Amino acid sequence: MSTAPTLADWMAAVQHRTEHALAAALPSPALAPRRLHEAMRYAVLGGGKRVRPLLAHAAGELTGGAPEDVDRVACAVELIHAYSLVHDDLPCMDDDVLRRGKPTVHVEYDEATALLVGDALQTLAFQVLAERPLRQAPGVQLEMLAQLAAASGSRGMAGGQAIDLASVGRKLGREELEFMHVHKTGALIRAAVLLGARTGPALEETALERLDHYAKIVGLLFQVVDDILDAEADTATLGKTAGKDADNDKPTYVSLLGLSEARRLAEDMLCEAKASLQGFGPRALRLGQLADYVVHRAF
Amino acid sequence: MSTAPTLADWMAAVQHRTEHALAAALPSPALAPRRLHEAMRYAVLGGGKRVRPLLAHAAGELTGGAPEDVDRVACAVELIHAYSLVHDDLPCMDDDVLRRGKPTVHVEYDEATALLVGDALQTLAFQVLAERPLRQAPGVQLEMLAQLAAASGSRGMAGGQAIDLASVGRKLGREELEFMHVHKTGALIRAAVLLGARTGPALEETALERLDHYAKIVGLLFQVVDDILDAEADTATLGKTAGKDADNDKPTYVSLLGLSEARRLAEDMLCEAKASLQGFGPRALRLGQLADYVVHRAF
Repeated sequence: MSTAPTLADWMAAVQHRTEHALAAALPSPALAPRRLHEAMRYAVLGGGKRVRPLLAHAAGELTGGAPEDVDRVACAVELIHAYSLVHDDLPCMDDDVLRRGKPTVHVEYDEATALLVGDALQTLAFQVLAERPLRQAPGVQLEMLAQLAAASGSRGMAGGQAIDLASVGRKLGREELEFMHVHKTGALIRAAVLLGARTGPALEETALERLDHYAKIVGLLFQVVDDILDAEADTATLGKTAGKDADNDKPTYVSLLGLSEARRLAEDMLCEAKASLQGFGPRALRLGQLADYVVHRAF
Repeated sequence: MSTAPTLADWMAAVQHRTEHALAAALPSPALAPRRLHEAMRYAVLGGGKRVRPLLAHAAGELTGGAPEDVDRVACAVELIHAYSLVHDDLPCMDDDVLRRGKPTVHVEYDEATALLVGDALQTLAFQVLAERPLRQAPGVQLEMLAQLAAASGSRGMAGGQAIDLASVGRKLGREELEFMHVHKTGALIRAAVLLGARTGPALEETALERLDHYAKIVGLLFQVVDDILDAEADTATLGKTAGKDADNDKPTYVSLLGLSEARRLAEDMLCEAKASLQGFGPRALRLGQLADYVVHRAF
């Protein structure tokens, strides 16, 4: 008989501790330059589902990492995610005015400030993970920093953005679409899972491979579901401008497969993600539940 | 009798090895996304005096660090510098069309690509310093990463940019101007010196303080001289749009002190920088010569 909290309670607890850790990691708005620090906090705090921190903590529970160390990973990954949103929303990229139900940073402040906010949030992500020792050996911590950088840079998330830019108005096949999302969204979600797991004792190679398979699928699944949500939802419930991808003639899983086929794909991927957790036992409870959550927030 | 190469030969050798190290650190343009990788190389290679790498190598010679480790520091610092130039040149910041005698990245490519180039170059800076061990203990390498992040972020270089933005059209006093430059230019130059020195055996506390004093002065000196150059030079010799600071009503040392007083300040700071190297002996040869070089490229 399990006495574990419900998923909703567990998520609320992780979201709460993540908010707290992010607020502590961000420079105080009382420090100069105040406007920049205020805008950095505006960009990061008080919004977002914190999917990457949730995955990091779920993976930390799998390996038995110290929650305080997972907080560091969760903050670092979430700060990278937050910086990418601020820059994506800029007029020269997606030109979005609404994010998480609030005006985007360049609308609330100005473009130059939004540029610097994104830049400084990225720096802070690496600072948070580097500046104090984790319980792991320093050599492992260095590898984790390198792994975060690889997931974020031109061969990871930023590269995915570049591929996305180049794809506007072009017809992409499913493989090309997948290549884009594996980088744009998938790389950082995968890093959240793998870095969360690295806060505990190292997994054996086959176990690590199974976890990595789970992480890759969930990263892609997240995007499939986002495309479904974008096609379905209206602006009010989504908290961002809906239907924008179609307006911009951006390829999506829905435009490629149709809505019902995209849903079936999501269900298939969910099964595969859960299958790759088999063998971990109850330690993988939250990872399995989060895969469900990612899909079922959609339908 | 010294058999050391002339400063010009030493500088050419360091510039050459830095160019080589940067070219190796940057992703090949044959890798996807090709346009992003091509633009990253365009932004970094084939230009620039490499002042920060020169200072890092000079400091590495002071402590006896391995040149291959100094290359890593030099690349990381130069990549941070390069990212900041790409973002500073964007229309929402300084709106510059010419850099190092070539069209700026957003002119040669486009704004969205320039944004991503800057983002990915920053990530690469941390990756270069994290991804393989240095000869130093991993704990020292972690501290170096944290130090680079602190120098680059909202309490360092990016913060200096924010203060600069807020100062346009305002009358700044000398203290405020200095506060801005200590962050905007000084922090990263200081990091180049201190991180270069950390590739060798740790300095004793008083020696480290003297080196830090040198680094702080040179960081500021660099800006004083830049202001003098900007006031004097024409576009052709500078390789960037000259007189731009005055056009934008940006405060400079020249606008604050006048040209001849700014020159006198530069000479005084040069003396102070060299005085703080006394006691290091011939190991500090290149650091002293570089302080001279920073000043005398101007007059």
